[in-house]
Amino acid sequence: MNFRYDIAIVGSGPAGLSAAVNAKIRNKSIIVFGKKELSNKLIKAPKIKNYLGLPDITGVQLKEKFEEHIKSMGINITPENINEIYAMGEYFGLMVNKKMYEAKTIILATGIEYTKPLKGEEKFLGRGVGYCATCDAPLYRGKIVTVIGYNREAEREANYVNELVGKVYYIPMYKGILELDKDIETIRDNVVEIYGNGKVEKVILGNGEITTDGVFVLKDSISPSQLVPGIVVEDNHVKVDVDMNTNIPGCFAAGDCVGKPYQYMKAVGQGQTAALNAVLYLDKVN
Amino acid sequence: MNFRYDIAIVGSGPAGLSAAVNAKIRNKSIIVFGKKELSNKLIKAPKIKNYLGLPDITGVQLKEKFEEHIKSMGINITPENINEIYAMGEYFGLMVNKKMYEAKTIILATGIEYTKPLKGEEKFLGRGVGYCATCDAPLYRGKIVTVIGYNREAEREANYVNELVGKVYYIPMYKGILELDKDIETIRDNVVEIYGNGKVEKVILGNGEITTDGVFVLKDSISPSQLVPGIVVEDNHVKVDVDMNTNIPGCFAAGDCVGKPYQYMKAVGQGQTAALNAVLYLDKVN
Repeated sequence: MNFRYDIAIVGSGPAGLSAAVNAKIRNKSIIVFGKKELSNKLIKAPKIKNYLGLPDITGVQLKEKFEEHIKSMGINITPENINEIYAMGEYFGLMVNKKMYEAKTIILATGIEYTKPLKGEEKFLGRGVGYCATCDAPLYRGKIVTVIGYNREAEREANYVNELVGKVYYIPMYKGILELDKDIETIRDNVVEIYGNGKVEKVILGNGEITTDGVFVLKDSISPSQLVPGIVVEDNHVKVDVDMNTNIPGCFAAGDCVGKPYQYMKAVGQGQTAALNAVLYLDKVN
Repeated sequence: MNFRYDIAIVGSGPAGLSAAVNAKIRNKSIIVFGKKELSNKLIKAPKIKNYLGLPDITGVQLKEKFEEHIKSMGINITPENINEIYAMGEYFGLMVNKKMYEAKTIILATGIEYTKPLKGEEKFLGRGVGYCATCDAPLYRGKIVTVIGYNREAEREANYVNELVGKVYYIPMYKGILELDKDIETIRDNVVEIYGNGKVEKVILGNGEITTDGVFVLKDSISPSQLVPGIVVEDNHVKVDVDMNTNIPGCFAAGDCVGKPYQYMKAVGQGQTAALNAVLYLDKVN
Protein backbone atom coordinates (compact mmCIF):
# COMPACT_ATOMS: atom_id res chain seq x y z
CA MET A 1 0.00 0.00 0.00
CA ASN A 2 1.17 3.48 -0.76
CA PHE A 3 2.05 5.92 1.98
CA ARG A 4 -0.73 8.46 2.11
CA TYR A 5 0.50 12.04 2.58
CA ASP A 6 -1.62 14.63 4.34
CA ILE A 7 -0.94 17.21 1.65
CA ALA A 8 0.51 16.87 -1.85
CA ILE A 9 1.69 20.13 -3.34
CA VAL A 10 2.00 20.27 -7.11
CA GLY A 11 4.45 22.98 -8.06
CA SER A 12 7.63 24.40 -6.52
CA GLY A 13 7.22 28.09 -7.31
CA PRO A 14 6.49 30.72 -4.65
CA ALA A 15 2.92 29.48 -4.03
CA GLY A 16 3.95 25.83 -3.67
CA LEU A 17 6.88 26.59 -1.38
CA SER A 18 4.84 28.86 0.84
CA ALA A 19 2.21 26.13 1.11
CA ALA A 20 4.94 23.63 2.00
CA VAL A 21 6.47 25.81 4.72
CA ASN A 22 3.10 26.43 6.35
CA ALA A 23 1.95 22.82 6.14
CA LYS A 24 5.25 21.66 7.63
CA ILE A 25 4.96 24.10 10.54
CA ARG A 26 1.56 22.55 11.23
CA ASN A 27 3.20 19.11 11.37
CA LYS A 28 1.53 17.66 8.31
CA SER A 29 3.20 15.04 6.16
CA ILE A 30 3.80 16.65 2.81
CA ILE A 31 5.23 15.94 -0.61
CA VAL A 32 6.16 18.71 -3.01
CA PHE A 33 6.37 17.91 -6.72
CA GLY A 34 8.47 20.34 -8.69
CA LYS A 35 11.76 21.21 -10.26
CA LYS A 36 15.24 21.37 -8.75
CA GLU A 37 15.53 24.94 -10.00
CA LEU A 38 12.20 25.56 -8.20
CA SER A 39 10.69 27.99 -10.72
CA ASN A 40 11.79 28.89 -14.23
CA LYS A 41 9.82 32.10 -14.11
CA LEU A 42 11.47 33.18 -10.85
CA ILE A 43 15.06 32.56 -11.88
CA LYS A 44 14.52 34.52 -15.08
CA ALA A 45 13.30 37.63 -13.19
CA PRO A 46 16.01 40.31 -13.51
CA LYS A 47 14.93 42.53 -10.59
CA ILE A 48 12.09 42.22 -8.08
CA LYS A 49 11.11 45.37 -6.24
CA ASN A 50 7.85 44.39 -4.61
CA TYR A 51 8.73 41.40 -2.42
CA LEU A 52 8.06 43.16 0.88
CA GLY A 53 11.06 42.96 3.18
CA LEU A 54 13.53 42.15 0.41
CA PRO A 55 13.82 45.29 -1.67
CA ASP A 56 15.77 45.15 -4.92
CA ILE A 57 16.51 41.45 -5.22
CA THR A 58 17.14 39.41 -8.35
CA GLY A 59 15.10 36.34 -9.19
CA VAL A 60 18.11 34.10 -8.64
CA GLN A 61 18.79 35.65 -5.21
CA LEU A 62 15.17 35.21 -4.18
CA LYS A 63 15.23 31.62 -5.37
CA GLU A 64 18.32 31.07 -3.19
CA LYS A 65 16.51 32.55 -0.19
CA PHE A 66 13.55 30.26 -0.83
CA GLU A 67 15.92 27.30 -1.09
CA GLU A 68 17.59 28.20 2.19
CA HIS A 69 14.19 28.54 3.85
CA ILE A 70 12.87 25.15 2.77
CA LYS A 71 16.20 23.43 3.51
CA SER A 72 16.19 24.87 7.03
CA MET A 73 12.85 23.15 7.54
CA GLY A 74 13.79 19.84 5.95
CA ILE A 75 11.52 20.24 2.95
CA ASN A 76 12.61 18.47 -0.22
CA ILE A 77 11.37 18.75 -3.76
CA THR A 78 10.35 15.53 -5.52
CA PRO A 79 11.37 16.15 -9.14
CA GLU A 80 8.53 14.35 -10.89
CA ASN A 81 5.92 15.59 -13.33
CA ILE A 82 2.42 14.71 -12.24
CA ASN A 83 0.38 13.72 -15.28
CA GLU A 84 -3.04 13.41 -13.77
CA ILE A 85 -4.79 13.65 -10.40
CA TYR A 86 -7.84 11.59 -9.56
CA ALA A 87 -10.24 12.32 -6.73
CA MET A 88 -10.82 8.86 -5.21
CA GLY A 89 -13.26 9.91 -2.48
CA GLU A 90 -11.17 9.61 0.66
CA TYR A 91 -7.95 10.57 -1.03
CA PHE A 92 -6.36 11.74 -4.26
CA GLY A 93 -4.24 9.63 -6.58
CA LEU A 94 -1.41 11.54 -8.25
CA MET A 95 -0.15 9.74 -11.30
CA VAL A 96 3.41 9.89 -12.60
CA ASN A 97 3.15 7.64 -15.62
CA LYS A 98 2.17 4.33 -13.99
CA LYS A 99 3.32 5.19 -10.50
CA MET A 100 0.74 6.58 -8.08
CA TYR A 101 1.26 8.83 -5.07
CA GLU A 102 -1.56 9.23 -2.56
CA ALA A 103 -2.57 12.27 -0.55
CA LYS A 104 -5.58 13.30 1.50
CA THR A 105 -5.51 16.83 0.15
CA ILE A 106 -4.01 18.55 -2.88
CA ILE A 107 -2.66 22.03 -3.40
CA LEU A 108 -2.30 22.97 -7.05
CA ALA A 109 0.42 25.55 -7.55
CA THR A 110 1.26 24.76 -11.14
CA GLY A 111 1.75 28.29 -12.41
CA ILE A 112 0.40 29.44 -15.70
CA GLU A 113 1.23 28.18 -19.12
CA TYR A 114 2.00 31.24 -21.18
CA THR A 115 2.45 29.21 -24.38
CA LYS A 116 -0.51 29.56 -26.70
CA PRO A 117 -1.86 26.19 -27.85
CA LEU A 118 -0.82 25.23 -31.37
CA LYS A 119 -3.47 25.22 -34.06
CA GLY A 120 -5.17 21.81 -33.85
CA GLU A 121 -3.60 20.97 -30.47
CA GLU A 122 -6.78 21.19 -28.43
CA LYS A 123 -8.99 19.86 -31.27
CA PHE A 124 -7.05 16.58 -31.46
CA LEU A 125 -6.29 16.15 -27.77
CA GLY A 126 -6.91 12.47 -27.03
CA ARG A 127 -7.18 11.76 -30.74
CA GLY A 128 -3.51 11.70 -31.51
CA VAL A 129 -2.35 14.64 -29.43
CA GLY A 130 -1.10 13.94 -25.90
CA TYR A 131 0.82 15.71 -23.14
CA CYS A 132 2.35 12.66 -21.46
CA ALA A 133 4.78 10.94 -23.77
CA THR A 134 5.78 8.28 -21.28
CA CYS A 135 2.13 7.44 -20.50
CA ASP A 136 0.91 7.08 -24.04
CA ALA A 137 3.97 6.00 -26.02
CA PRO A 138 2.97 2.31 -25.80
CA LEU A 139 -0.11 3.15 -27.91
CA TYR A 140 2.15 3.91 -30.87
CA ARG A 141 4.20 0.71 -31.19
CA GLY A 142 5.59 0.52 -34.72
CA LYS A 143 4.06 3.87 -35.62
CA ILE A 144 5.29 7.41 -36.32
CA VAL A 145 5.34 9.89 -33.42
CA THR A 146 6.23 13.59 -33.43
CA VAL A 147 7.45 15.16 -30.20
CA ILE A 148 7.09 18.96 -30.00
CA GLY A 149 9.38 19.91 -27.12
CA TYR A 150 9.34 23.24 -25.24
CA ASN A 151 12.21 22.42 -22.91
CA ARG A 152 15.22 20.15 -22.55
CA GLU A 153 13.35 17.61 -20.41
CA ALA A 154 11.35 16.82 -23.51
CA GLU A 155 14.51 15.38 -25.08
CA ARG A 156 14.65 12.66 -22.40
CA GLU A 157 11.04 11.83 -23.03
CA ALA A 158 11.62 11.69 -26.77
CA ASN A 159 14.46 9.21 -26.21
CA TYR A 160 12.15 7.07 -24.10
CA VAL A 161 9.41 7.17 -26.72
CA ASN A 162 11.99 6.21 -29.31
CA GLU A 163 12.52 2.86 -27.57
CA LEU A 164 8.90 1.95 -28.04
CA VAL A 165 7.66 3.32 -31.34
CA GLY A 166 8.61 2.96 -35.01
CA LYS A 167 9.91 6.44 -35.76
CA VAL A 168 10.31 9.69 -33.81
CA TYR A 169 10.47 13.24 -35.15
CA TYR A 170 11.61 15.90 -32.67
CA ILE A 171 10.63 19.54 -33.15
CA PRO A 172 12.40 21.75 -30.59
CA MET A 173 10.61 25.01 -29.73
CA TYR A 174 13.87 26.39 -28.32
CA LYS A 175 17.48 26.86 -29.40
CA GLY A 176 20.61 24.95 -28.49
CA ILE A 177 22.26 21.60 -28.95
CA LEU A 178 20.00 18.59 -28.44
CA GLU A 179 20.84 15.30 -26.72
CA LEU A 180 18.75 12.91 -28.72
CA ASP A 181 19.14 9.30 -29.84
CA LYS A 182 20.79 9.15 -33.24
CA ASP A 183 17.82 7.70 -35.06
CA ILE A 184 15.48 10.51 -33.92
CA GLU A 185 14.99 12.98 -36.77
CA THR A 186 15.23 16.60 -35.64
CA ILE A 187 13.18 19.18 -37.51
CA ARG A 188 13.86 22.87 -36.92
CA ASP A 189 10.83 24.62 -38.34
CA ASN A 190 7.67 26.45 -37.22
CA VAL A 191 4.64 24.35 -36.45
CA VAL A 192 1.76 25.81 -38.43
CA GLU A 193 -0.92 23.25 -37.58
CA ILE A 194 -1.60 19.79 -36.28
CA TYR A 195 -3.89 18.47 -38.96
CA GLY A 196 -6.13 15.49 -39.47
CA ASN A 197 -9.50 14.10 -40.27
CA GLY A 198 -11.10 12.82 -37.05
CA LYS A 199 -7.60 12.02 -35.76
CA VAL A 200 -4.08 13.33 -36.23
CA GLU A 201 -2.64 12.65 -39.66
CA LYS A 202 0.12 15.19 -40.11
CA VAL A 203 1.99 18.18 -38.75
CA ILE A 204 2.07 21.11 -41.16
CA LEU A 205 5.29 23.10 -40.92
CA GLY A 206 6.49 26.43 -42.25
CA ASN A 207 8.39 24.52 -44.93
CA GLY A 208 6.60 21.27 -45.66
CA GLU A 209 4.78 18.70 -43.56
CA ILE A 210 5.29 15.40 -41.71
CA THR A 211 2.97 12.43 -41.79
CA THR A 212 2.52 11.23 -38.21
CA ASP A 213 0.25 9.00 -36.11
CA GLY A 214 0.70 10.85 -32.86
CA VAL A 215 1.96 14.17 -31.52
CA PHE A 216 3.25 14.78 -27.99
CA VAL A 217 3.30 18.42 -26.97
CA LEU A 218 5.68 18.70 -23.99
CA LYS A 219 5.46 22.03 -22.19
CA ASP A 220 6.64 23.36 -18.83
CA SER A 221 3.25 22.99 -17.26
CA ILE A 222 0.09 21.15 -17.98
CA SER A 223 -3.24 22.92 -17.82
CA PRO A 224 -5.25 22.37 -14.63
CA SER A 225 -8.22 20.97 -16.49
CA GLN A 226 -5.95 18.33 -18.04
CA LEU A 227 -4.34 17.65 -14.70
CA VAL A 228 -7.45 17.31 -12.54
CA PRO A 229 -10.50 15.96 -14.36
CA GLY A 230 -13.64 17.75 -13.18
CA ILE A 231 -11.97 20.85 -11.81
CA VAL A 232 -13.78 24.08 -12.63
CA VAL A 233 -11.70 26.45 -14.72
CA GLU A 234 -12.76 29.96 -15.71
CA ASP A 235 -10.87 32.06 -18.28
CA ASN A 236 -7.99 29.61 -18.19
CA HIS A 237 -7.63 29.82 -14.37
CA VAL A 238 -8.69 27.42 -11.63
CA LYS A 239 -11.76 28.85 -9.97
CA VAL A 240 -11.19 29.39 -6.24
CA ASP A 241 -12.87 31.25 -3.42
CA VAL A 242 -11.06 33.58 -1.05
CA ASP A 243 -10.00 30.55 1.04
CA MET A 244 -8.41 28.93 -2.04
CA ASN A 245 -10.98 26.12 -2.21
CA THR A 246 -11.58 24.73 -5.69
CA ASN A 247 -14.89 23.05 -6.52
CA ILE A 248 -13.42 19.69 -5.41
CA PRO A 249 -13.45 19.19 -1.62
CA GLY A 250 -9.89 18.80 -0.34
CA CYS A 251 -8.39 20.25 -3.51
CA PHE A 252 -6.98 23.76 -3.10
CA ALA A 253 -5.15 25.98 -5.58
CA ALA A 254 -2.88 29.00 -5.31
CA GLY A 255 -0.65 31.30 -7.31
CA ASP A 256 -0.64 32.16 -10.98
CA CYS A 257 -2.85 29.17 -11.83
CA VAL A 258 -5.82 30.76 -10.03
CA GLY A 259 -5.59 34.14 -11.74
CA LYS A 260 -3.98 37.54 -12.00
CA PRO A 261 -2.04 39.39 -10.77
CA TYR A 262 0.86 37.06 -11.65
CA GLN A 263 2.99 38.22 -8.74
CA TYR A 264 5.22 36.54 -6.19
CA MET A 265 3.75 37.92 -2.98
CA LYS A 266 0.22 37.23 -4.09
CA ALA A 267 1.29 33.66 -4.88
CA VAL A 268 3.07 33.24 -1.55
CA GLY A 269 0.08 34.58 0.39
CA GLN A 270 -2.33 32.32 -1.44
CA GLY A 271 -0.04 29.33 -0.89
CA GLN A 272 -0.15 30.04 2.83
CA THR A 273 -3.93 30.40 2.81
CA ALA A 274 -4.32 27.17 0.84
CA ALA A 275 -2.08 25.24 3.24
CA LEU A 276 -3.77 26.51 6.39
CA ASN A 277 -7.19 25.73 4.97
CA ALA A 278 -5.98 22.27 3.95
CA VAL A 279 -4.93 21.80 7.58
CA LEU A 280 -8.42 22.81 8.76
CA TYR A 281 -9.92 20.41 6.21
CA LEU A 282 -7.73 17.56 7.47
CA ASP A 283 -8.73 18.28 11.06
CA LYS A 284 -12.36 17.98 10.03
CA VAL A 285 -12.15 14.75 8.01
CA ASN A 286 -9.66 12.89 10.21
CA MET B 1 -9.46 72.27 -2.78
CA ASN B 2 -7.89 69.17 -1.31
CA PHE B 3 -5.27 67.22 -3.20
CA ARG B 4 -6.91 64.06 -4.42
CA TYR B 5 -4.72 60.97 -4.08
CA ASP B 6 -5.07 58.04 -6.45
CA ILE B 7 -5.01 55.55 -3.58
CA ALA B 8 -5.44 56.02 0.17
CA ILE B 9 -4.25 53.07 2.24
CA VAL B 10 -5.64 52.78 5.74
CA GLY B 11 -3.26 50.73 7.84
CA SER B 12 0.50 50.30 7.99
CA GLY B 13 0.76 46.59 8.74
CA PRO B 14 2.01 44.04 6.21
CA ALA B 15 -1.08 44.35 3.97
CA GLY B 16 -0.99 48.15 3.88
CA LEU B 17 2.74 48.33 3.23
CA SER B 18 2.59 45.76 0.46
CA ALA B 19 -0.25 47.72 -1.14
CA ALA B 20 1.84 50.89 -0.83
CA VAL B 21 4.93 49.36 -2.45
CA ASN B 22 2.94 47.99 -5.37
CA ALA B 23 0.93 51.17 -5.93
CA LYS B 24 4.11 53.25 -5.84
CA ILE B 25 5.80 51.00 -8.41
CA ARG B 26 2.81 51.67 -10.64
CA ASN B 27 3.39 55.42 -10.25
CA LYS B 28 0.20 56.18 -8.38
CA SER B 29 -0.02 59.01 -5.86
CA ILE B 30 -0.60 57.38 -2.50
CA ILE B 31 -1.09 58.23 1.14
CA VAL B 32 -0.65 55.64 3.88
CA PHE B 33 -2.35 56.22 7.22
CA GLY B 34 -0.81 54.31 10.08
CA LYS B 35 1.54 54.21 13.02
CA LYS B 36 5.21 55.05 13.22
CA GLU B 37 5.84 51.62 14.69
CA LEU B 38 3.95 50.25 11.63
CA SER B 39 2.17 47.37 13.35
CA ASN B 40 1.75 46.55 17.02
CA LYS B 41 0.96 42.96 16.21
CA LEU B 42 4.10 42.55 14.13
CA ILE B 43 6.56 44.02 16.63
CA LYS B 44 5.15 41.78 19.36
CA ALA B 45 5.78 38.58 17.33
CA PRO B 46 8.64 36.68 18.96
CA LYS B 47 9.60 34.45 16.03
CA ILE B 48 8.22 34.18 12.51
CA LYS B 49 9.03 31.00 10.61
CA ASN B 50 6.72 31.22 7.63
CA TYR B 51 7.68 34.45 5.90
CA LEU B 52 9.06 32.80 2.77
CA GLY B 53 12.60 33.92 2.04
CA LEU B 54 13.26 35.16 5.58
CA PRO B 55 13.38 32.07 7.77
CA ASP B 56 13.55 32.51 11.54
CA ILE B 57 13.09 36.23 11.88
CA THR B 58 11.69 38.18 14.83
CA GLY B 59 8.78 40.55 14.47
CA VAL B 60 11.01 43.52 15.20
CA GLN B 61 13.53 42.43 12.56
CA LEU B 62 10.81 41.97 9.98
CA LYS B 63 9.40 45.38 10.84
CA GLU B 64 12.87 46.84 10.26
CA LYS B 65 13.06 45.15 6.88
CA PHE B 66 9.65 46.55 5.96
CA GLU B 67 10.79 50.01 7.07
CA GLU B 68 13.94 49.77 4.96
CA HIS B 69 11.87 48.69 1.97
CA ILE B 70 9.36 51.55 2.13
CA LYS B 71 12.10 54.09 2.86
CA SER B 72 14.05 52.94 -0.18
CA MET B 73 10.97 53.77 -2.24
CA GLY B 74 10.22 57.11 -0.62
CA ILE B 75 7.01 55.93 1.06
CA ASN B 76 6.06 57.74 4.28
CA ILE B 77 3.48 56.90 6.89
CA THR B 78 0.96 59.62 7.81
CA PRO B 79 0.37 59.07 11.52
CA GLU B 80 -3.31 59.95 11.69
CA ASN B 81 -6.31 57.92 12.76
CA ILE B 82 -9.04 57.92 10.16
CA ASN B 83 -12.40 58.13 11.89
CA GLU B 84 -14.73 57.65 9.00
CA ILE B 85 -14.65 57.18 5.23
CA TYR B 86 -17.43 58.44 2.98
CA ALA B 87 -18.01 57.30 -0.59
CA MET B 88 -18.72 60.57 -2.40
CA GLY B 89 -19.31 59.08 -5.85
CA GLU B 90 -16.20 60.13 -7.76
CA TYR B 91 -13.96 59.94 -4.74
CA PHE B 92 -13.74 59.02 -1.08
CA GLY B 93 -13.51 61.45 1.81
CA LEU B 94 -11.34 60.24 4.69
CA MET B 95 -12.10 62.11 7.89
CA VAL B 96 -9.61 62.82 10.65
CA ASN B 97 -11.75 64.72 13.08
CA LYS B 98 -12.73 67.74 11.00
CA LYS B 99 -9.96 67.44 8.42
CA MET B 100 -10.72 65.61 5.21
CA TYR B 101 -8.35 63.75 2.90
CA GLU B 102 -9.54 62.79 -0.58
CA ALA B 103 -8.69 59.74 -2.66
CA LYS B 104 -10.08 58.12 -5.77
CA THR B 105 -9.70 54.63 -4.31
CA ILE B 106 -9.32 53.16 -0.85
CA ILE B 107 -7.50 50.12 0.44
CA LEU B 108 -8.59 49.07 3.92
CA ALA B 109 -5.82 47.24 5.75
CA THR B 110 -6.91 47.99 9.27
CA GLY B 111 -6.15 44.64 10.83
CA ILE B 112 -8.47 42.96 13.23
CA GLU B 113 -9.60 44.12 16.61
CA TYR B 114 -8.98 41.24 18.95
CA THR B 115 -10.53 43.05 21.89
CA LYS B 116 -13.97 41.76 22.71
CA PRO B 117 -16.53 44.57 22.98
CA LEU B 118 -17.39 45.52 26.55
CA LYS B 119 -20.82 44.65 27.82
CA GLY B 120 -23.10 47.47 26.69
CA GLU B 121 -20.53 48.94 24.29
CA GLU B 122 -22.34 48.02 21.09
CA LYS B 123 -25.78 48.52 22.60
CA PHE B 124 -25.08 52.17 23.44
CA LEU B 125 -22.96 53.02 20.41
CA GLY B 126 -24.15 56.46 19.28
CA ARG B 127 -26.20 56.82 22.45
CA GLY B 128 -23.37 57.80 24.73
CA VAL B 129 -20.67 55.41 23.54
CA GLY B 130 -18.28 56.66 20.87
CA TYR B 131 -14.96 55.65 19.32
CA CYS B 132 -13.74 59.10 18.30
CA ALA B 133 -13.08 61.26 21.34
CA THR B 134 -11.84 64.25 19.39
CA CYS B 135 -14.88 64.12 17.05
CA ASP B 136 -17.56 63.91 19.68
CA ALA B 137 -16.08 65.61 22.76
CA PRO B 138 -17.82 68.93 21.90
CA LEU B 139 -21.16 67.17 22.50
CA TYR B 140 -20.29 66.83 26.20
CA ARG B 141 -19.51 70.43 27.18
CA GLY B 142 -19.89 70.75 30.92
CA LYS B 143 -20.70 67.04 31.27
CA ILE B 144 -18.98 63.93 32.65
CA VAL B 145 -17.05 61.75 30.22
CA THR B 146 -15.29 58.43 30.80
CA VAL B 147 -12.42 57.45 28.52
CA ILE B 148 -11.63 53.72 28.39
CA GLY B 149 -8.17 53.61 26.85
CA TYR B 150 -6.53 50.53 25.33
CA ASN B 151 -3.25 52.22 24.43
CA ARG B 152 -1.10 55.22 25.27
CA GLU B 153 -2.47 57.32 22.41
CA ALA B 154 -5.75 57.35 24.29
CA GLU B 155 -4.07 59.46 26.99
CA ARG B 156 -3.52 62.30 24.51
CA GLU B 157 -7.13 62.09 23.45
CA ALA B 158 -8.28 62.12 27.06
CA ASN B 159 -6.26 65.29 27.65
CA TYR B 160 -7.90 66.88 24.64
CA VAL B 161 -11.38 65.89 25.80
CA ASN B 162 -10.52 67.31 29.20
CA GLU B 163 -10.21 70.80 27.67
CA LEU B 164 -13.78 70.68 26.47
CA VAL B 165 -15.90 68.81 28.99
CA GLY B 166 -16.77 69.17 32.66
CA LYS B 167 -15.03 66.13 34.10
CA VAL B 168 -12.97 63.21 32.71
CA TYR B 169 -12.48 59.76 34.18
CA TYR B 170 -9.72 57.68 32.58
CA ILE B 171 -9.80 53.89 32.80
CA PRO B 172 -6.57 52.40 31.40
CA MET B 173 -6.89 48.85 30.01
CA TYR B 174 -3.09 48.48 30.22
CA LYS B 175 -0.33 48.89 32.76
CA GLY B 176 2.24 51.62 33.19
CA ILE B 177 2.60 55.25 34.14
CA LEU B 178 0.06 57.59 32.56
CA GLU B 179 0.63 61.08 31.19
CA LEU B 180 -2.65 62.70 31.96
CA ASP B 181 -3.75 66.20 32.92
CA LYS B 182 -3.85 66.57 36.68
CA ASP B 183 -7.59 67.04 36.96
CA ILE B 184 -8.36 63.79 35.10
CA GLU B 185 -9.34 61.10 37.57
CA THR B 186 -7.67 57.76 36.86
CA ILE B 187 -9.55 54.61 37.79
CA ARG B 188 -7.74 51.29 37.78
CA ASP B 189 -10.51 48.70 37.83
CA ASN B 190 -12.26 46.19 35.57
CA VAL B 191 -15.09 47.47 33.45
CA VAL B 192 -18.04 45.15 34.07
CA GLU B 193 -20.65 46.96 32.01
CA ILE B 194 -21.59 50.20 30.31
CA TYR B 195 -25.08 50.69 31.65
CA GLY B 196 -28.03 52.93 30.98
CA ASN B 197 -31.66 53.30 30.16
CA GLY B 198 -31.98 54.32 26.52
CA LYS B 199 -28.65 56.12 26.80
CA VAL B 200 -25.46 55.76 28.83
CA GLU B 201 -25.86 56.57 32.53
CA LYS B 202 -22.99 54.83 34.25
CA VAL B 203 -20.00 52.53 34.03
CA ILE B 204 -20.20 49.57 36.36
CA LEU B 205 -16.78 48.53 37.67
CA GLY B 206 -15.45 45.57 39.58
CA ASN B 207 -15.49 47.71 42.69
CA GLY B 208 -18.18 50.34 42.41
CA GLU B 209 -19.54 52.46 39.59
CA ILE B 210 -19.18 55.90 37.96
CA THR B 211 -22.01 58.13 36.85
CA THR B 212 -21.17 59.40 33.37
CA ASP B 213 -22.83 61.07 30.37
CA GLY B 214 -20.54 59.64 27.74
CA VAL B 215 -17.99 56.87 27.26
CA PHE B 216 -15.21 56.87 24.69
CA VAL B 217 -13.76 53.45 24.00
CA LEU B 218 -10.34 54.03 22.37
CA LYS B 219 -8.87 50.88 20.83
CA ASP B 220 -6.06 50.15 18.41
CA SER B 221 -8.41 49.75 15.52
CA ILE B 222 -11.91 50.68 14.65
CA SER B 223 -14.24 48.14 13.09
CA PRO B 224 -14.66 48.40 9.32
CA SER B 225 -18.41 48.86 9.58
CA GLN B 226 -17.83 51.88 11.82
CA LEU B 227 -15.14 53.18 9.53
CA VAL B 228 -16.94 52.84 6.19
CA PRO B 229 -20.71 53.23 6.36
CA GLY B 230 -22.39 50.78 3.99
CA ILE B 231 -19.56 48.31 3.70
CA VAL B 232 -20.64 44.67 3.80
CA VAL B 233 -19.19 42.79 6.75
CA GLU B 234 -19.62 39.06 7.37
CA ASP B 235 -18.60 37.36 10.61
CA ASN B 236 -16.74 40.47 11.69
CA HIS B 237 -14.67 40.62 8.46
CA VAL B 238 -14.97 42.84 5.41
CA LYS B 239 -16.46 40.77 2.61
CA VAL B 240 -14.16 40.65 -0.41
CA ASP B 241 -13.85 38.61 -3.56
CA VAL B 242 -10.63 36.97 -4.72
CA ASP B 243 -9.55 40.30 -6.30
CA MET B 244 -10.01 42.08 -2.93
CA ASN B 245 -13.02 44.11 -4.10
CA THR B 246 -15.46 45.06 -1.36
CA ASN B 247 -19.10 45.78 -2.20
CA ILE B 248 -18.22 49.47 -2.72
CA PRO B 249 -16.67 50.19 -6.15
CA GLY B 250 -13.16 51.57 -5.73
CA CYS B 251 -12.91 50.35 -2.14
CA PHE B 252 -10.63 47.36 -1.65
CA ALA B 253 -9.59 45.54 1.51
CA ALA B 254 -6.73 43.23 2.47
CA GLY B 255 -5.12 41.45 5.38
CA ASP B 256 -6.56 40.40 8.73
CA CYS B 257 -9.61 42.66 8.31
CA VAL B 258 -10.92 40.47 5.47
CA GLY B 259 -10.62 37.17 7.30
CA LYS B 260 -8.49 34.29 8.46
CA PRO B 261 -5.79 33.10 8.36
CA TYR B 262 -4.33 36.02 10.29
CA GLN B 263 -0.89 35.65 8.75
CA TYR B 264 1.75 38.01 7.39
CA MET B 265 2.29 36.50 3.96
CA LYS B 266 -1.40 36.18 3.29
CA ALA B 267 -1.78 39.85 4.24
CA VAL B 268 1.13 40.93 2.07
CA GLY B 269 -0.19 38.99 -0.92
CA GLN B 270 -3.67 40.43 -0.52
CA GLY B 271 -2.25 43.94 -0.17
CA GLN B 272 -0.49 43.46 -3.48
CA THR B 273 -3.62 42.13 -5.15
CA ALA B 274 -5.69 45.02 -3.77
CA ALA B 275 -3.18 47.61 -5.02
CA LEU B 276 -2.89 46.16 -8.49
CA ASN B 277 -6.65 45.93 -8.82
CA ALA B 278 -6.98 49.51 -7.57
CA VAL B 279 -4.57 50.48 -10.37
CA LEU B 280 -6.75 48.67 -12.92
CA TYR B 281 -9.81 50.43 -11.48
CA LEU B 282 -8.11 53.83 -11.79
CA ASP B 283 -7.17 53.12 -15.40
CA LYS B 284 -10.81 52.39 -16.14
CA VAL B 285 -12.38 55.42 -14.44
CA ASN B 286 -9.73 58.00 -15.40
